[in-house]
Amino acid sequence: MENEIRKDYLLDRWVIIAAERAKRPSDFKVEASPRDVGKVCPFCPGNEEMTPPATLLYLEKEGKLLRDRDSGGARRSDWIVRCFPNRYPAVKPETKEVKAVDNEMLYRTRAYGFHEVIVESPVHDEQPSKMRLKQLKYSLMAQIERAAAFYRDPSIRYVQIFRNYRREAGASLSHPHSQIIATEHIPKILTEEVKSSKTYMEKEGRCIFCDIIEVEKESSRLIYESKHFVALAPWASIQPFEFWILPKKHSANLLKITDEELDELSRILKAGLRALSEVLGDPPYNYVFHTAPKYPRGIEKFYHWHLEVYPKLAVWAGFEIGTGMYINVTPPEVAAESLKAEIKKCL
Amino acid sequence: MENEIRKDYLLDRWVIIAAERAKRPSDFKVEASPRDVGKVCPFCPGNEEMTPPATLLYLEKEGKLLRDRDSGGARRSDWIVRCFPNRYPAVKPETKEVKAVDNEMLYRTRAYGFHEVIVESPVHDEQPSKMRLKQLKYSLMAQIERAAAFYRDPSIRYVQIFRNYRREAGASLSHPHSQIIATEHIPKILTEEVKSSKTYMEKEGRCIFCDIIEVEKESSRLIYESKHFVALAPWASIQPFEFWILPKKHSANLLKITDEELDELSRILKAGLRALSEVLGDPPYNYVFHTAPKYPRGIEKFYHWHLEVYPKLAVWAGFEIGTGMYINVTPPEVAAESLKAEIKKCL
Repeated sequence: MENEIRKDYLLDRWVIIAAERAKRPSDFKVEASPRDVGKVCPFCPGNEEMTPPATLLYLEKEGKLLRDRDSGGARRSDWIVRCFPNRYPAVKPETKEVKAVDNEMLYRTRAYGFHEVIVESPVHDEQPSKMRLKQLKYSLMAQIERAAAFYRDPSIRYVQIFRNYRREAGASLSHPHSQIIATEHIPKILTEEVKSSKTYMEKEGRCIFCDIIEVEKESSRLIYESKHFVALAPWASIQPFEFWILPKKHSANLLKITDEELDELSRILKAGLRALSEVLGDPPYNYVFHTAPKYPRGIEKFYHWHLEVYPKLAVWAGFEIGTGMYINVTPPEVAAESLKAEIKKCL
Repeated sequence: MENEIRKDYLLDRWVIIAAERAKRPSDFKVEASPRDVGKVCPFCPGNEEMTPPATLLYLEKEGKLLRDRDSGGARRSDWIVRCFPNRYPAVKPETKEVKAVDNEMLYRTRAYGFHEVIVESPVHDEQPSKMRLKQLKYSLMAQIERAAAFYRDPSIRYVQIFRNYRREAGASLSHPHSQIIATEHIPKILTEEVKSSKTYMEKEGRCIFCDIIEVEKESSRLIYESKHFVALAPWASIQPFEFWILPKKHSANLLKITDEELDELSRILKAGLRALSEVLGDPPYNYVFHTAPKYPRGIEKFYHWHLEVYPKLAVWAGFEIGTGMYINVTPPEVAAESLKAEIKKCL
């Protein structure tokens, strides 16, 4: 197979698929992260005073899920999932307007929004690829519940849920946690996805994501298909072994996921991350949910929520920074082949 | 100072400037790279057989610069700068058309172009921040000469010159080298820069970069000004301590740089990188030249070449990958203050 240049399904995002020097799993050397030895973990139960009061706590009593929040100065320690504001927020609700600079080239605006941490488990090293399924489901449920709360703020237009795993992928603490940043602007990638999917709907009368699923189900990029979801290595993957999970039933909004779907999503996400870990030796990764922003009208029809997993196996360097293009040394067809074989053992 | 969201001068690129937790130089811990101990360096003189034949060699005889290239199977070893095709090219001149996939969502095209390595010095550890000025000038001159050669190919529309320093920033070999990738498509970031600068010219009748220089020269983001250049920390820096170098005289095309300007560019680039190293303890970085693509017509009037230096101090993680927005924990005004004080000592 020759090298080729591919364009993302929706985005103006181009990648050189370097098929001629295609790297297979054994070509990637993933090194172990340095351990946080001897440090007190601020996310472990008992250390809640080290972080702000919880905005949402999940507790389990006699097998039933209960909700609470820290009140006043006190903190609860008997939680199974714990959500609280990031101590160093990128955006926050108490913010003043910034004065415009009298120059159109120097545009700025306030950094309004919410930035929260979701501690996914009370167990310090219970990472998603090995998490108890029920625990993973609760953690996702809490993320969705907080995202819904932020969307109720009239100023908030988009909520980004994301997960960084290992220091190399931006996690400064190893205790399992996700983050949410809610903003009053729809960020660039979402704007582009929305625009493309809207145009496709106007032209073809169908959801582009539904069509992607139909096409990729029959392709060598399919990794797994279950009742409600597909996992696939996307056509224009920008990282080796990148994979996406999409709901088969058209749905723009992650927040409307059903309980049965959430069970299945937990199972597939865990198996996918486990397969990645087995194939590559526990690489760092980021995963991100893309769900419908609050606008424009009619978005329910043409947008389609999904989850994108980016293993951190390539360094984006001068070429990527200078051009905005990517080079990927593992074609998605090669990645899918490995992940497909492995994921079955992980389910 | 509160956090704020800024937009790049030209690009649809947004960054949250996290001024409230503003990190100063001492907050960054830069670790030493592992040394390539005991490995034979394929870029050192004497090991030329380990790389493809040179397309351009600079030699120095009695103080005069001479040019040559490797011919046949033989290799010369007495070079001071050596250019050759990348052994694992992302793009290459011998390439077939790829068959279109019968689906508009799966767009692909051939990976035609040139991908070369420029070994900047015969001395294994002579990095740009400590390079002899004459050597740095020759290295830049060779990069420009090769870029000019690629532009003569009628299919080539853009040539990206870039430099990765240290493994963390994508350099797989430590011997000083730059790379060039020439493509038949104008990449995304350049397309956007061209479009914005064209619109600005149509509206204002002036080059946007010339105006940026005028505005920033009077701002707290100016780092240094010489006869022909300014160095500044850009308004919407996406990395801590990012800086750009721009020629003061309007010029779209790096390839038209004069000998006097090249002398001065070498001096400022070296001093800027040296200042960065002194302030932060030798961090990894990438730098990239942006010069006019071959099209559209009239580009000489509204585009303006420049050099962008990106220290690798932040990990772009889930938030950046999910949204296309950035978070920068060092406002450019803080970065400029440190670099401005240091660069004077380095000139």
